[in-house]
Amino acid sequence: MKTPFQTVALIGKYNSAELSEPLLRLAHFLQQRKLEVLLSQQTAERIGNVPYAAVSMKEIGARADLVVVMGGDGTMLNIARELIEYDVPLVGVNQGRLGFLTDVSIEDMLETMDEILEGEFAAEERFLLNAVVRRQGQPVYQAYAFNDVVVSKGTSGRLIELEVFIDGQFVYSQRSDGLVVATPTGSTAYALSAGGPILHPTLEAMVLVPICPHTLSNRPIAVNSHSVMEVLLLHAVDASVNFDGQSHIDLQQNDWVVVRRSENNIRLLHPLGHSYYNTLRQKLRWGEKL
Amino acid sequence: MKTPFQTVALIGKYNSAELSEPLLRLAHFLQQRKLEVLLSQQTAERIGNVPYAAVSMKEIGARADLVVVMGGDGTMLNIARELIEYDVPLVGVNQGRLGFLTDVSIEDMLETMDEILEGEFAAEERFLLNAVVRRQGQPVYQAYAFNDVVVSKGTSGRLIELEVFIDGQFVYSQRSDGLVVATPTGSTAYALSAGGPILHPTLEAMVLVPICPHTLSNRPIAVNSHSVMEVLLLHAVDASVNFDGQSHIDLQQNDWVVVRRSENNIRLLHPLGHSYYNTLRQKLRWGEKL
Amino acid sequence: MKTPFQTVALIGKYNSAELSEPLLRLAHFLQQRKLEVLLSQQTAERIGNVPYAAVSMKEIGARADLVVVMGGDGTMLNIARELIEYDVPLVGVNQGRLGFLTDVSIEDMLETMDEILEGEFAAEERFLLNAVVRRQGQPVYQAYAFNDVVVSKGTSGRLIELEVFIDGQFVYSQRSDGLVVATPTGSTAYALSAGGPILHPTLEAMVLVPICPHTLSNRPIAVNSHSVMEVLLLHAVDASVNFDGQSHIDLQQNDWVVVRRSENNIRLLHPLGHSYYNTLRQKLRWGEKL
Amino acid sequence: MKTPFQTVALIGKYNSAELSEPLLRLAHFLQQRKLEVLLSQQTAERIGNVPYAAVSMKEIGARADLVVVMGGDGTMLNIARELIEYDVPLVGVNQGRLGFLTDVSIEDMLETMDEILEGEFAAEERFLLNAVVRRQGQPVYQAYAFNDVVVSKGTSGRLIELEVFIDGQFVYSQRSDGLVVATPTGSTAYALSAGGPILHPTLEAMVLVPICPHTLSNRPIAVNSHSVMEVLLLHAVDASVNFDGQSHIDLQQNDWVVVRRSENNIRLLHPLGHSYYNTLRQKLRWGEKL
Repeated sequence: MKTPFQTVALIGKYNSAELSEPLLRLAHFLQQRKLEVLLSQQTAERIGNVPYAAVSMKEIGARADLVVVMGGDGTMLNIARELIEYDVPLVGVNQGRLGFLTDVSIEDMLETMDEILEGEFAAEERFLLNAVVRRQGQPVYQAYAFNDVVVSKGTSGRLIELEVFIDGQFVYSQRSDGLVVATPTGSTAYALSAGGPILHPTLEAMVLVPICPHTLSNRPIAVNSHSVMEVLLLHAVDASVNFDGQSHIDLQQNDWVVVRRSENNIRLLHPLGHSYYNTLRQKLRWGEKL
Repeated sequence: MKTPFQTVALIGKYNSAELSEPLLRLAHFLQQRKLEVLLSQQTAERIGNVPYAAVSMKEIGARADLVVVMGGDGTMLNIARELIEYDVPLVGVNQGRLGFLTDVSIEDMLETMDEILEGEFAAEERFLLNAVVRRQGQPVYQAYAFNDVVVSKGTSGRLIELEVFIDGQFVYSQRSDGLVVATPTGSTAYALSAGGPILHPTLEAMVLVPICPHTLSNRPIAVNSHSVMEVLLLHAVDASVNFDGQSHIDLQQNDWVVVRRSENNIRLLHPLGHSYYNTLRQKLRWGEKL
Repeated sequence: MKTPFQTVALIGKYNSAELSEPLLRLAHFLQQRKLEVLLSQQTAERIGNVPYAAVSMKEIGARADLVVVMGGDGTMLNIARELIEYDVPLVGVNQGRLGFLTDVSIEDMLETMDEILEGEFAAEERFLLNAVVRRQGQPVYQAYAFNDVVVSKGTSGRLIELEVFIDGQFVYSQRSDGLVVATPTGSTAYALSAGGPILHPTLEAMVLVPICPHTLSNRPIAVNSHSVMEVLLLHAVDASVNFDGQSHIDLQQNDWVVVRRSENNIRLLHPLGHSYYNTLRQKLRWGEKL
Repeated sequence: MKTPFQTVALIGKYNSAELSEPLLRLAHFLQQRKLEVLLSQQTAERIGNVPYAAVSMKEIGARADLVVVMGGDGTMLNIARELIEYDVPLVGVNQGRLGFLTDVSIEDMLETMDEILEGEFAAEERFLLNAVVRRQGQPVYQAYAFNDVVVSKGTSGRLIELEVFIDGQFVYSQRSDGLVVATPTGSTAYALSAGGPILHPTLEAMVLVPICPHTLSNRPIAVNSHSVMEVLLLHAVDASVNFDGQSHIDLQQNDWVVVRRSENNIRLLHPLGHSYYNTLRQKLRWGEKL
C-alpha cells in the first residue's frame, strides 16, 4: 500500500534543544521510507547542520502532506494558528505528559508514524476562532485562536463593563473581570478554570464563559459555532484581548471584538484507539472503573 | 394566502378551570376562520359541553396540523413527550409569566395566532431524549424526556456509585447524589441548578451534569446529541431515574440507563421577533443594556 | 512523668473482624503500661473471649480518661455523637487512608500512643450540632450531628420549598433539592460536594449550603456557631432530614428543623506535628510545593 | 439624656457636588443640637465657604466622637482604612441604593441621627486586614484593606504561580489568575464573584478564594482571623497586589504578601432594626417570604 503522505514537515517546540535528537531520529526514519522531509526554519536553525530542507511556515503549508509537531499542546496551538489557511493534517508528538492535542509519546513515535503512513489513524476536524477588533468602525487587528479569545481587565484591578451580542441579538451586559469565548478545544483550558463546561471536540459549538461576573446568576452559555459573537467594551480603565493566552492587544473604550468560526478546519490525526475520554479522565483525575 | 393549517387542536393544562374561558375564546376565533377545532379529551371534559370534537392524543397526533398548548412549560413538556412520534408543530400559550417553551401570552394570543395562520412565525426544531432502563440484559422501561433524564439517590441520603459510557467508551466512575442528562431545552431547567451550562436550542448536543459529585474535579460535559449515553448503577441503597421530573421508576443495582436522541424532533412555532436571549435574560435577571 | 490517662477505652468499627488483631495488640500494650483497658460491648462481642472489661458506651463515657476509636472517619462520627455529653478525649486510628478525624495509622499506633500517654499531643476542640424537629409546636425528634444536618427532597424528584431564619431573623425562602447545615468538621464532607467552602476546625462557625437551588444567585453562607438556625419546610411532596448521612427521619409540611451548637465539645487528640492543611492537600489533591 | 457624642465629623464622597446640600442640612441639624461639627478638608473645599471647622483626617481621628460618612460603600472603605488606628465609630449615609456599610438613606438621615444621638443604635465591630509586601527580607509596602487583599496576574494574561502558608504551615501551591484574601465585610464583594462564600460580619474569620485556579479541586477556605496568611509569588510574568480594589502595587518574583488581622476594629453604628440578612437578600435577589 502506498502512503498518501509524500512530504512530511517537522516542527519542534520553540527553543527546545532537547528535541533535536528525537526530531532527527524521526527525520531519518521518514527519509528511509523515501519520503521528503522538511524542517521549519526555526527548527532547522536550532538543530544545526542537517541534510533536510529548511523552509518557511508558508512553504510548509503549501508543500507538506503531513506536519508533525513536537512539543506540548502550547506548541500545537501556535502551529495550528499558522497553518489554518492550508489544508494539511497535523500529528502531535509530546515530549512529556500527553496532551489533548499532542497524544503521541516520543517513545511510541516511530511505531505510530508507521501506522499513520499506512493510513491507520483517526482523523478529527477542529475549528479555530477568527477574531477581529473593530475601532470606530474600522478593523484594527485580526487574529486566530485555537483555544480561546479572552477579553479581560488589566492590572488596575477594576472591573470592565461589556455588552454581548450573538447573531445581532443582544444577550447581556456584564460587569466582570472578563469574558472567555472558547472552542471545544479550548473548553478544557482556561475556560474550564473560569467555570465553563467541557465541550466534546465534535461539537459545532463555542462557549461564552464570564470571569468573576458581578451578577451572580450569570452562567456559561454554549452557542452554535456558526454564530457571530460580538463583544462591545463599554467601559474599562484598562482592558485587553488575548488569543490562546499567547498574544494580546490593548483595548479602548467602545472597541468591538467580533468572533466567528474559522472558515477552514484543522485536521488532527490520532493513533487508532485514541480516546478523548481517557485523556480527560487522566488530566482531570476523574474516577477510574470501580 | 391560504393557511397551511386546516385542523387545529387545543390542549389546556391539566385541571386548570381558569383556562376554559381563553380556550373557548381561541376555539371560537379559529372556528370563525373556518378551521376545524379539536380539543383533547381531558381538556374537553374540564370545559364541559362545547361544540368541538373531543379526541384522544393519538387522534390529535394523526389529524391536527397545529397544536396549541395552553399552560406553562411543564404542560408543554408533557404534551411534547406524547406527540413526539407525530409530525405536528406546537405553539405554547402561557397563562402567567412567559416561559421558554410557552412564549405567547393569553393577551396576545389571537393576534399571534392570526400571524401564525398567515405563515408568519419562526419554526424551531427540538429533540427529546429516549431513555431505556435495562435490567439483566432486558429492557424493563422506556420513556421520553424533553428536559432531562435524572439518575439520583433516594431518601436514605446515601451516595450512589455509577459508571458512564459514551458511544461505548468508558468516561468515568462517579460517587454522587446523581447525574443529569439534559437536552438544550433542559439545560435551563434542573441541570442549571446543578451547575450545568446553558446550551442554545440549535445545538445538537446533550449535557451530562453530576449532582454533588464526591470528586471535586468533576465538571459538566456536553457531547454530541447523536452519542449514546449509558449509565451503569454500580451501587446504591436506593436510587431511581426520573424523566422531566414528572415520572420516575426505582432502579436496582447493575441496572443500565441508556439514553439517546429521539429519532423525531418536536417543531415549536414562535411569534416573529421571538428572541431566546431575551427570555434567558429575563428569567435569569441578567444585565440589561447599560 | 505520670500519664494523665488511667483508663483507656477501645472501640472498633462496627462489624470489622480485621480490626480484632490491632485492637488486641493495642489493649495488650496499654495493659503492660498498667492502664485499665475497657472495650465497648459491641467491640468485645466481635473479638470474642478476652480479659478486658466489656462495657456500655454510657460506662465508657463515665469511666474512661481516653477513648481510642479504630476505623474510619465514619466510625468516629458515630462515637463522637454518642459521647458528646461526656468529657472524654478521643484519638482516631485509621485502618486505611488517614482521615480528617482518624489520623493515626495502625502502623504508628503504638508509638503515637506512647507519646500521647506521655502528654505529647495536640488537643483540639470541635463542636457538634444539636437538631430538633418540631411539629405543630412540639419537639418530635432530637439528634446530634458532627458533620451536618441535611434537609432534602425524597425519591419523587420534586423540589422542596423552605424558609430559613437565623436568630429569629428571616434569611431567605428557597426552592431546591435541599439544604445542608454543616460544622467545620462537616465542611469537608457532603457540604463540599454541594459547593460549600472549607471552614478551618478552629472556627466557631457553621455553614448553610443550598443543594441545587432554583435561585441561581444563592450562595453558601457561614454564620456564627452560636446562632440558632431554623428551617421551615413550607412545601414538599416528600422530604426528610438526615444527620451525618447516618440516620434520617421523614418530614411533614410545616415541620421546623431547629439547629444549634452542642453545649459540649468533643476533644480530639492528634499526634504532635499533625497538620490540618496536609490532610486537606492530600485529600483534595491540591498542589504540593513547586 | 446627654448624648455620648459631642463632636461629629462629616465626610462626603470624593468630588460629589450633589452631596453638598444634604451635608449642610446634616451639619445644621447637628449644630442646632449644640454639637461641634467638623468637616474633612476635602469635603469642606468641595462645599465652599461654610461656618464649620475644616480639619485633616488625622484631626478627625483625634477629636471626633462620631464620624458620618456620606456616599456609597466604596467611600466607607476608604474612610475606614484611614481611621482604623483611631477609636471613633462610623455611620454610613447612602445617596443611592443602601449598601452593606452605608445603610442610612438621605431621606431618613435626620431621624436616624436623632436616634443615634440618643444612644439608640446597634454597634458592630469589624476588622480590617493589614498587608505587608516583603522583598528580599525587607518590608517594601504596607496597606490596610477593609474588603480584601488580592494578588493577581497582569495584562499579559499569563497565570501566576504562588504558594500559600497559614501560621507557618504550607497550605498549597497554586497556578491561577490570582488569590483573594477577604474579610467578612469583603466576602460579599469581589470574593463572592470569584466563588467565595458569604461570611457573617460577626465571624472572626478571613477567607481565601482562588481566582480561576488551574487545579479544579481547589476550593475557598475560611480560616481564623487571627491566623497569619503568607503568599509567596513563585513565578509571574507580571503580577500585582491590590487593596480593596482601590490601590495596587506591582509584585516581583519571590515577593511575599503577608496578611494579618488589624489590631484595632472599626465600629459601625446601624439604626435599630437593621438586618444584615435583609440587605443580603435584597442585594442578591434571594427569595422573599412565600
